[in-house]
Amino acid sequence: MGFNRKDLLGIRDLEAAEIEYLLDLSRSFKEINERSIKKVPTLRGKTIIHLFYEPSTRTRTSFDIAAKRLSADTYSISASTSSIVKGETALDTLKNLEAMRPDVFVIRHSASGAPQMLAGRTTASVINAGDGMHEHPSQALLDMLTILDNKGRLDGLNVVIVGDIYHSRVARSNIWGLTKMGSTVVVCGPATLIPPNIDAMGVKVTNHLEQCIPDADVIMVLRLQKERQQQMLLPSVREYATLYGINGQRLKEARKDVLIMHPGPMNRGVEISPEVADGPYSVILEQVTNGVAVRMALLYLLAQR
Amino acid sequence: MGFNRKDLLGIRDLEAAEIEYLLDLSRSFKEINERSIKKVPTLRGKTIIHLFYEPSTRTRTSFDIAAKRLSADTYSISASTSSIVKGETALDTLKNLEAMRPDVFVIRHSASGAPQMLAGRTTASVINAGDGMHEHPSQALLDMLTILDNKGRLDGLNVVIVGDIYHSRVARSNIWGLTKMGSTVVVCGPATLIPPNIDAMGVKVTNHLEQCIPDADVIMVLRLQKERQQQMLLPSVREYATLYGINGQRLKEARKDVLIMHPGPMNRGVEISPEVADGPYSVILEQVTNGVAVRMALLYLLAQR
Amino acid sequence: MGFNRKDLLGIRDLEAAEIEYLLDLSRSFKEINERSIKKVPTLRGKTIIHLFYEPSTRTRTSFDIAAKRLSADTYSISASTSSIVKGETALDTLKNLEAMRPDVFVIRHSASGAPQMLAGRTTASVINAGDGMHEHPSQALLDMLTILDNKGRLDGLNVVIVGDIYHSRVARSNIWGLTKMGSTVVVCGPATLIPPNIDAMGVKVTNHLEQCIPDADVIMVLRLQKERQQQMLLPSVREYATLYGINGQRLKEARKDVLIMHPGPMNRGVEISPEVADGPYSVILEQVTNGVAVRMALLYLLAQR
Repeated sequence: MGFNRKDLLGIRDLEAAEIEYLLDLSRSFKEINERSIKKVPTLRGKTIIHLFYEPSTRTRTSFDIAAKRLSADTYSISASTSSIVKGETALDTLKNLEAMRPDVFVIRHSASGAPQMLAGRTTASVINAGDGMHEHPSQALLDMLTILDNKGRLDGLNVVIVGDIYHSRVARSNIWGLTKMGSTVVVCGPATLIPPNIDAMGVKVTNHLEQCIPDADVIMVLRLQKERQQQMLLPSVREYATLYGINGQRLKEARKDVLIMHPGPMNRGVEISPEVADGPYSVILEQVTNGVAVRMALLYLLAQR
Repeated sequence: MGFNRKDLLGIRDLEAAEIEYLLDLSRSFKEINERSIKKVPTLRGKTIIHLFYEPSTRTRTSFDIAAKRLSADTYSISASTSSIVKGETALDTLKNLEAMRPDVFVIRHSASGAPQMLAGRTTASVINAGDGMHEHPSQALLDMLTILDNKGRLDGLNVVIVGDIYHSRVARSNIWGLTKMGSTVVVCGPATLIPPNIDAMGVKVTNHLEQCIPDADVIMVLRLQKERQQQMLLPSVREYATLYGINGQRLKEARKDVLIMHPGPMNRGVEISPEVADGPYSVILEQVTNGVAVRMALLYLLAQR
Repeated sequence: MGFNRKDLLGIRDLEAAEIEYLLDLSRSFKEINERSIKKVPTLRGKTIIHLFYEPSTRTRTSFDIAAKRLSADTYSISASTSSIVKGETALDTLKNLEAMRPDVFVIRHSASGAPQMLAGRTTASVINAGDGMHEHPSQALLDMLTILDNKGRLDGLNVVIVGDIYHSRVARSNIWGLTKMGSTVVVCGPATLIPPNIDAMGVKVTNHLEQCIPDADVIMVLRLQKERQQQMLLPSVREYATLYGINGQRLKEARKDVLIMHPGPMNRGVEISPEVADGPYSVILEQVTNGVAVRMALLYLLAQR
């Protein structure tokens, strides 16, 4: 089985075999990034438009590097730039850009579902680069690739996701993906930051970090948005760090081969301590490296439909 | 007759034969944009600088796509970026960039005449991408190409331009071009938004939309800048929409083969209704597609002088 | 002797033979920029990241043009863009980007020493594109190349640097370079804008312009930051212009073959008069042209290590 979709909108829609195929293909692109001449002509003459309604440096740069290493031409449109500001609807912006004949739109939007809506209105391919609290599928794929590289499998693992589950599209995409691939997912965080019905997604829920650390094969640490405190969802950043911050002390209870992951950017000293971020269990920078390979695979598939 | 100028500053200067040549050449570039591999090596090693003193996404992106599909390298300098902000004159910025050996400057500026002044001070080619209330020649060329594609001719047509004629460089460039090519142009809008001496440009003037719709082969709808209301040039946006908005009801009086055009971005529900924007008479997205081809032709001619 | 360093962080560290080598190599790149097809495939498949924590148009554009004319792919990350804003440390940003496998980082930062710190933490090459009041080595190299082109030598010259020496990394890098190459450097400006111990760098100091103009082979005019007045370092911009502005009247005392240089952007009428900026002694635009060649040489050396 391959991957024969027009768009990549989320992990939820995918079958396990499709995820497997994408991860296999991604692995084959990793090597290009380690060459002295990191460029292949595969997507020469293809047009990729990054349409970002939310600011992003790392995700946009990762997609941009992926595209250019495949020799595609790229264009970045951000909501802070003009004609979007002039009050044009997202759909009109998309239709306009579509008339310039792009092959792929990479779309980030603060509204959950926006890339889906837009994908239904264009013949170009759409990659969801993060929409609201919904999905961030390329992030989940790079996370799964990183786990697979290190553990050799995705089934039967115990993956703990710690932090603000409620607002996290990274968490949601990973939950969909990891459970499909046969792992057990535990979400852990303060009750205010865990959605009430999350167990319907097939995950275990706990508010106590010490309960889930000992059995974890993987601990995914989520970024804490400090504005959650102003929204009264957190007593204080300091208390959060005490209860849910991953530090060396906490990891004494962990398995010797636990993997520590973080989608970045990190708040060092809040959700993760520097010694853990830079320590032997951390595969955080491997995630970033894998991100370029995953996005090369996605652009390769979608730009050549 | 070809096109042997260093710069494209406006439509007013051009002879009809030059316009015809540019439209012919543009048509030959359309096909590249429909290929699977949308790229030719024609302008490899050429340097195009977009120098934008006014914000723009669609025009800048259109030029950028045109340039890259011809394999040129492009650079975007916008007034919101630093060294322009540091108080350097536009001329010093231009001379500095010229010293880096660009082939073409694509310049947008809020001051009418700025690209002309700058063109006279550089050996590089200059394309006016819109200057104040003066001209926007590539827009008029793409508009004429779209009319020609749909009507088969530019002479003997009745073209109605509706809206804020006073502030519109799109209107001015189209008036110069269409009258040169043998069409009749009617401008229609509230008296406050029509320049007093516009009839000297060879156009008919009316304030009543119902008078000009029945005979129109083409209706060009201009964007209404909502700030015109604060400037006391409009009673209200709602009243404007009632008197000058193009909607399905209005078009019952129109010819069955009327073309509806809009330079974008649209205020849906103000100057144009959604049913018209997306309806069978609309060639608005064709305009955008033609824009890339027109700009490829212009860059092709000027970057290789 | 060649240039076998991983990074270019400053001129201070370099030996005279290395500077000579860099200038020789830069000269060989000048010709590419005068071709009709200004592009060579040398750095195809290399990744250059511009990481700018301070705004810059001219330096960034110069590096960008240099990189693309060598066929490298470039990416611009500026502090005004998002993920840097999200509070990530510069080191985490660097490590993240490093995980995407760039070959060279071109870094500008308002903190003196930041590029040095970062260079020590990455296996990629780092070019300091200006750090605080510390160094701006590519600027000094292009300045020295311009002097060499015009004077045929760098030793035994009398170079006067006029203006705000205190805050100028351009002055510091030139002082290190020119004194190493055998020139005499005189710094001239108001006492408040000259660092107390500057003579330890091997320069002569004066507060009187008329004392140093007659013997000058080269006068480097520095940009006056107008905010120095608010910082009480200047009585007024007008008085500064009177005492230290370089104008035609002043140059009556100068040698007939004096060179006038300025790193840009200029405050015309403050530190330099228009007649001098555009006059026969001025090599200001030659500096800009040489800047592209110098940066091509640097990228050529560092991206291929």
